[in-house]
Amino acid sequence: MRRPVVVLAMVPALTPQLFTPELLERLRATSEVLDGDPLTSFDEERAGRLLAEAEVLLTGWGCPRIGRRVLDRAPRLRAIVHAAGTVKGHVSEACWERGLLVSSAAAANALPVAEYTVAAILFANKRVFRLQRRYREVRAFRWWPDELPGLGNFGKTVGLVGASRVGRRVIELLRPFDLAVQVHDPYLTAAEAAELGVRATELDELVATSDVVSLHAPAIPETRHLMDRRRLALLRDGATLVNTARGWLVDGEALVDELRSGRIDAVIDTTDPEVLPPDSPLYDLPNVFLTPHVAGAMGAETQRLAALAIEEIERYAAGEPFRHGIAREDLGRLA
Amino acid sequence: MRRPVVVLAMVPALTPQLFTPELLERLRATSEVLDGDPLTSFDEERAGRLLAEAEVLLTGWGCPRIGRRVLDRAPRLRAIVHAAGTVKGHVSEACWERGLLVSSAAAANALPVAEYTVAAILFANKRVFRLQRRYREVRAFRWWPDELPGLGNFGKTVGLVGASRVGRRVIELLRPFDLAVQVHDPYLTAAEAAELGVRATELDELVATSDVVSLHAPAIPETRHLMDRRRLALLRDGATLVNTARGWLVDGEALVDELRSGRIDAVIDTTDPEVLPPDSPLYDLPNVFLTPHVAGAMGAETQRLAALAIEEIERYAAGEPFRHGIAREDLGRLA
Repeated sequence: MRRPVVVLAMVPALTPQLFTPELLERLRATSEVLDGDPLTSFDEERAGRLLAEAEVLLTGWGCPRIGRRVLDRAPRLRAIVHAAGTVKGHVSEACWERGLLVSSAAAANALPVAEYTVAAILFANKRVFRLQRRYREVRAFRWWPDELPGLGNFGKTVGLVGASRVGRRVIELLRPFDLAVQVHDPYLTAAEAAELGVRATELDELVATSDVVSLHAPAIPETRHLMDRRRLALLRDGATLVNTARGWLVDGEALVDELRSGRIDAVIDTTDPEVLPPDSPLYDLPNVFLTPHVAGAMGAETQRLAALAIEEIERYAAGEPFRHGIAREDLGRLA
Repeated sequence: MRRPVVVLAMVPALTPQLFTPELLERLRATSEVLDGDPLTSFDEERAGRLLAEAEVLLTGWGCPRIGRRVLDRAPRLRAIVHAAGTVKGHVSEACWERGLLVSSAAAANALPVAEYTVAAILFANKRVFRLQRRYREVRAFRWWPDELPGLGNFGKTVGLVGASRVGRRVIELLRPFDLAVQVHDPYLTAAEAAELGVRATELDELVATSDVVSLHAPAIPETRHLMDRRRLALLRDGATLVNTARGWLVDGEALVDELRSGRIDAVIDTTDPEVLPPDSPLYDLPNVFLTPHVAGAMGAETQRLAALAIEEIERYAAGEPFRHGIAREDLGRLA
């Protein structure tokens, strides 16, 4: 059992939330943590000293890019363990070339995203956001099923775009409900879909036949504006688009046009750009429920990320492979 | 196998939603349905003829009270099968005295209520309603966990008041999440609680130690203003009160005062009175998410109620006991 030298690199505001005293103690049991304060820049004065000794970089949101010049100053570096989702921001081509081991806590980050999504789906099928708004407007009795025909979580079809970690967790969480789930994912085979208890569909068909369409695809070149004007027009009248993935996946201008018509609703946690400009219609459209990219791990939820990352470092120290390792060739399919 | 004579009594707007052609066909397979149009009043001209023959009254929302004078005109009546939740509105003391069999679809109605509740709990722990509102206000980047300390669905405590059908279904649906669930119910033993995987607590303690308090108790004399001014003051700062049960359970004036302080949030589907008067502060308080009593079965969800009621009539026709029968002595514990 070696005691790897660990250096932290992330937004410092994060560490008290990520690393509770218990978790830090656990980390220190297997590792030598150099300087508990995380690096926020590799140009800091102390960065040279820390990089010179680091064997594992324990990274988080706000970790700066680890390029060739950084690597040159980190001769002992063997692994990057990321206590957050995507590693695309900080793990450079040079890291892969050098053969560094890379692990990500995306699996832990998927849980809260799926939880937000499931709540959004249940409320969307029930048209809860519309009911809330309409009740406030009319302040009187209405026969709501006549105002919002088809409302309710029974026999509805949910379309998931992407059988990603989040997508699969959503499938799992939707099992207790009387909903049909269909999934589009270019890598999902019919056999896998059957095993998951869902129907595999083409994207256009999924969009045209779902009551809720929820996006769980990665932001890669092929998924840019996956939901373009043509596809948005395929959405059923009264359907809801849920986006907890990335604004990249949706043509924002076309979405605003479609929403302005009042034909569809949307629950949107991720936009392009982020933060939206103050004059974005998405803030004020009544049929949009907009949140500021919060579906992922926040607050206490980030402790799951830290726990997962620490487990990975424990495996590394014991000479075992990462459980959540990422290979360079996975990047084209991952968020 | 007898073919019981069935008469419908409910708001007629309901029948097309409740009884799809398939369900009606199924009902007609075992029963003789007299006059497909439901009675809405027992004073209607055709009521006398229908009551004279009815063996089973298949009732729904809006069924008028079945008092002694109605019963006197229904000499063959043996059973009241209710395709909705509570039977307290229409099943009179005289029905019990006559020894009529009574069944309710409350078990089916519990599903959508629990679904709404779970979505509300997940959003409440994540402070999603506040995030939505604040983002719209500031239209800029914020470090949200600092603005809303403790947000997130991890390690939170959910307090359920009432181990009713809805309460138990909520417990079941919350299992996949990293949440502790505690329950107050005067009829719940510690052993039963352990079996359900929850902690049984006193009500004051539950209110004071939960991040979300969700009400699932029946509206009976003992539960009137269960959440009174004193108990509402026990709620933690930042806690959310969810009410999908009955407005009866909460001192509305005290709730408004507590909400005005901004100290707590609320997701409210049921109020007293219902509909709220147009000047009720609950419509406009920013920390209230208010819906017009829609958590229960609506739209397509009502088909579950009809299916359950038809199954009960099938059991009756086969000489079997109801699966969802209600006895007079249950009324004191039921919604």
